[in-house]
Amino acid sequence: MLIQSILYIFINMKKSEIINLIKKQKKNYSLDQAFYTNDEIFELDIKNIFQKQWVFVGHISRIPNSGDYFLFNIGKESIIIIRDFDKNVQALYNVCRHRGSQICLENNGNKKLLVCPYHAWSYNLDGSIKSARLMSDNFEKEKWSLHRCNVKIFEGLIFINLSDHPNDFNEFIEPTKKFIQFHGLGEAKIAHRQIYPTFGNWKLTLDNFHECYHCQPSHPEYCSVHDSEYIIAYGAGNNTGPSSEKFNKKLDEWNKKVSAMGHVTGQYSEIEFNDYSRSAERTPLKDGNYNETKSGKPTAKLMGNFKKYDRGYTSVGTSPFNSLLMCNDFATLFTFIPKSTLHTEVELMWLVHKDAKEGVDYNLDEIIWMWDVTTLADKRIIEDNQKGVLSNKYTPGPLSLMEIGLEKFKSWYLQQLEISLNI
Amino acid sequence: MLIQSILYIFINMKKSEIINLIKKQKKNYSLDQAFYTNDEIFELDIKNIFQKQWVFVGHISRIPNSGDYFLFNIGKESIIIIRDFDKNVQALYNVCRHRGSQICLENNGNKKLLVCPYHAWSYNLDGSIKSARLMSDNFEKEKWSLHRCNVKIFEGLIFINLSDHPNDFNEFIEPTKKFIQFHGLGEAKIAHRQIYPTFGNWKLTLDNFHECYHCQPSHPEYCSVHDSEYIIAYGAGNNTGPSSEKFNKKLDEWNKKVSAMGHVTGQYSEIEFNDYSRSAERTPLKDGNYNETKSGKPTAKLMGNFKKYDRGYTSVGTSPFNSLLMCNDFATLFTFIPKSTLHTEVELMWLVHKDAKEGVDYNLDEIIWMWDVTTLADKRIIEDNQKGVLSNKYTPGPLSLMEIGLEKFKSWYLQQLEISLNI
Amino acid sequence: MLIQSILYIFINMKKSEIINLIKKQKKNYSLDQAFYTNDEIFELDIKNIFQKQWVFVGHISRIPNSGDYFLFNIGKESIIIIRDFDKNVQALYNVCRHRGSQICLENNGNKKLLVCPYHAWSYNLDGSIKSARLMSDNFEKEKWSLHRCNVKIFEGLIFINLSDHPNDFNEFIEPTKKFIQFHGLGEAKIAHRQIYPTFGNWKLTLDNFHECYHCQPSHPEYCSVHDSEYIIAYGAGNNTGPSSEKFNKKLDEWNKKVSAMGHVTGQYSEIEFNDYSRSAERTPLKDGNYNETKSGKPTAKLMGNFKKYDRGYTSVGTSPFNSLLMCNDFATLFTFIPKSTLHTEVELMWLVHKDAKEGVDYNLDEIIWMWDVTTLADKRIIEDNQKGVLSNKYTPGPLSLMEIGLEKFKSWYLQQLEISLNI
Repeated sequence: MLIQSILYIFINMKKSEIINLIKKQKKNYSLDQAFYTNDEIFELDIKNIFQKQWVFVGHISRIPNSGDYFLFNIGKESIIIIRDFDKNVQALYNVCRHRGSQICLENNGNKKLLVCPYHAWSYNLDGSIKSARLMSDNFEKEKWSLHRCNVKIFEGLIFINLSDHPNDFNEFIEPTKKFIQFHGLGEAKIAHRQIYPTFGNWKLTLDNFHECYHCQPSHPEYCSVHDSEYIIAYGAGNNTGPSSEKFNKKLDEWNKKVSAMGHVTGQYSEIEFNDYSRSAERTPLKDGNYNETKSGKPTAKLMGNFKKYDRGYTSVGTSPFNSLLMCNDFATLFTFIPKSTLHTEVELMWLVHKDAKEGVDYNLDEIIWMWDVTTLADKRIIEDNQKGVLSNKYTPGPLSLMEIGLEKFKSWYLQQLEISLNI
Repeated sequence: MLIQSILYIFINMKKSEIINLIKKQKKNYSLDQAFYTNDEIFELDIKNIFQKQWVFVGHISRIPNSGDYFLFNIGKESIIIIRDFDKNVQALYNVCRHRGSQICLENNGNKKLLVCPYHAWSYNLDGSIKSARLMSDNFEKEKWSLHRCNVKIFEGLIFINLSDHPNDFNEFIEPTKKFIQFHGLGEAKIAHRQIYPTFGNWKLTLDNFHECYHCQPSHPEYCSVHDSEYIIAYGAGNNTGPSSEKFNKKLDEWNKKVSAMGHVTGQYSEIEFNDYSRSAERTPLKDGNYNETKSGKPTAKLMGNFKKYDRGYTSVGTSPFNSLLMCNDFATLFTFIPKSTLHTEVELMWLVHKDAKEGVDYNLDEIIWMWDVTTLADKRIIEDNQKGVLSNKYTPGPLSLMEIGLEKFKSWYLQQLEISLNI
Repeated sequence: MLIQSILYIFINMKKSEIINLIKKQKKNYSLDQAFYTNDEIFELDIKNIFQKQWVFVGHISRIPNSGDYFLFNIGKESIIIIRDFDKNVQALYNVCRHRGSQICLENNGNKKLLVCPYHAWSYNLDGSIKSARLMSDNFEKEKWSLHRCNVKIFEGLIFINLSDHPNDFNEFIEPTKKFIQFHGLGEAKIAHRQIYPTFGNWKLTLDNFHECYHCQPSHPEYCSVHDSEYIIAYGAGNNTGPSSEKFNKKLDEWNKKVSAMGHVTGQYSEIEFNDYSRSAERTPLKDGNYNETKSGKPTAKLMGNFKKYDRGYTSVGTSPFNSLLMCNDFATLFTFIPKSTLHTEVELMWLVHKDAKEGVDYNLDEIIWMWDVTTLADKRIIEDNQKGVLSNKYTPGPLSLMEIGLEKFKSWYLQQLEISLNI
């Protein structure tokens, strides 16, 4: 059975049926099959969950010059992320206002003017319309600028929000701000970028990312880099597994030492249900390790405010769709993009200091090794999970003590969806 | 986003909802998204528009001998176009009356008898049943002939009509008759045939063909062959763009000269709404040009009633699904075949005088050059248009002064569909 | 038209509409289009027909040792057929009870323990749960064993039944028992196994197998091995064609001779409608032939109770989804697996005596020749039949005197479906 060949599983469900299904979900169990297989629920997910979140889709170093652009494609939408002549980053829907042609046809490039290749309507780099030939006298040109998408830059990270009424960006970024800022991502560059197409529902993909119960059986490389006590207690973020007295002691000592260095410490997780699903913490790496490489030895240049190594690890989730896993000398950024009911794209970006030179300051293979091999393993795991979940015999199973992160994500998701459906 | 991977966009709409949607469409704007993306509307289009039209699907020179046949495939239908022993052309559904097997399995060939490869039921070339083995005594053989499809030959062009109650062929062909007849297509042969699969809705494909607003930005080859004033005023047919005094003067002079030669002149377009969407006109080519080749020099043999060159261009649309673009010495014929909601097949046939010899009287590359490169460009344009139209942000945009032909086609389409739904 | 590209034909039908459609079907005519093309009816078929039958899915010689397993995949289900440490064959759903991952990822192999590759939950080879790490105190382990599938071994044949309330196996196998047992399949081995993917509805595939009206036009190899009188009267089983006095005489004589040898003779077919659709008979091969090979000469070792050749042919259908066609020295077994509305998998297994050595006792090409070439031909026939059946012009056609077997199958199918829908 190839998942790619299963084209749709379409059960015509009424809104009330979906709300009843949401209410039926049991705490500490995985979700019912329909949440992982149904096209209608997928459409609701995109509309009510994905499109309401601020999602990090790229780094400014991809578009250093005016006119540089790249496309971010999600489902049937294509967004042009472009730097204008005032050096601002714009996010524009890639849909000509005349008869709807896409305007930028390449995945990235440089444009001095956005000219539709069909009838040559032209737009400035901020999306405002410049010219339309041979229109009638009552044509009100100013009404036909490109549709704009909400966009914010924070520390070099380009966030977009597809909602017509986006949440306030500052409110959104506040709790994770200090964790990100200390790493100086605004002064970074992309060392490598890779997309891992994963044939599983986006929630199965994120279930996987929200628990480290599978790390020991499935990820020997990850387990070689991280402390076994850390993995149990913190592998999927703070407050997601059984607490470890031993690790807590190590953390306390490290916190004291690192605070004294003037470095950020601490952790954040959502206390009450709200529009966001954020988390952050700083923790010590395995004894002897400087970062998430095979050797554990320093590589590249120290980033941001790090003047010397503190051997810490910063894990930030800004939303379910993004994770930032940062060592002192490089960072691995994740974007999870739901493509269709049974297809998710996982995009990884490895960032280093903008002045670090490949082959001189760092070896690319060392930096990407762990998360590349681990993401490939997760791709296979998620695809095998999806195949089993398609069976008529699949029923929600009980979660372990190491799947509290998954339960939190699941519970947040169900509440978000229910609220959206009730409006 | 590959359009081929978007498998269906199925919104369950009631008939009344579709009628309301039709009424909502605004004059001089492109259509709402659903008309270009919805599977249900596509099914209605096939049933109520395509299947009611007389469509030219091939030229008799493809099947010169008794038993020669080719298949015309549209959606789930396959039609056998075959020449019988009386030299008549028959159109038969490729479905055995026994248990439904296809009878002709190759796209073209020669058959002395139509024998079903499954159980050997056999049919004469006119579709009448010949034999069925081992049937019970009460089998009424004469009731089990192949289903026939309406077919008419006009000037060597094979027209079929999939309706059970087809419009009268003579009424249909009357207004364009003289334009076609003068070119002697019945005494022609196919020099080349090419299919351009286009991943866009058939109406996006025909929108493209019904306006020449895009010709200047997109078709340098077309613009090198045709007068710029002609392109504006006549590029998509008569009465489809702003009138050009300069071109009208040129046309008047040419009409006088050509009438004196005894050649056909004039133009036709529908005055009132009716079952057809036909147009025709004769116009002078660019100064210095004899035809639509790069050099503009004479090529092949003069066709039909042309005894000498009049340097004219005959453009005929018998329905939205066919165009005939004819020079004095060769003709380019178009058939647009809707395959599925997001897929249209564009078939081109280049015709020359039956006695013209390739390499001696004409060079094939010269003849096909302009419409080959232009149709390939249109394929790309239409596909990029379709991608943009799939966005949630696509909304109908205002049409220019050069898109009157598109507006006419759109308005005819909407009226046809509405009438069909009200019956 | 590629059938593979026709993705769905989904007409939303109510239960009452389907029952009315069933009632509308005419005796001695093929079925209406919807039965061969509609996804909803396909889902009903799987649930109400396929899942209620005992289906032979493999031979024990595929899994001789404890831990040996193979997967049987049908639609979205994957079943692990595995031999446990008590040498029993188990059939287990390939779905971990924790979060649903598939457990066995390869199509066959050997497992000492069924360990889910995701979180390492482990199961014994009988499906009982062995361990689950880090669960909460109230986890009731014994409730989380793998879902078991009904399984029975008869003469080395592995039968499974996907129903929650399966029919009694002994009742099911009773009428065909003696025919199978005489051939000693339990003491056999698989000489060759081949899957023929067939892009046609499962009922079109079985229609083909239930009549030999097409044998003469389509299967010269089959007709070279079997008597022409046999083909007419018995080609699709006993009581499926016009009776042949000549063949009946031959059969009577052969029966007497063979009974005297102590061999099984006779025939079975269902008299009254019941849950099963079984048939069986023993008949003489063409004069001069020992088996279904090109030469007709003895090959391999005599199987089961045959001490010397009786030149007979044993044909058994245990259900529409399985046929066993057995000579004295080898057997060809068929499994028909509905994969999706327009896709059926036909699996063939050729069995020989377990001690027969390839290259010494038999030549593999000789044994597989006839049914390999015939099944390939049927694949093409069925695919061309499906293409025609998709036409709007397809209507049920009248059956011949040689299609009584098809009519029986059709009538049984319609009754089964109607009863299921009325419950």
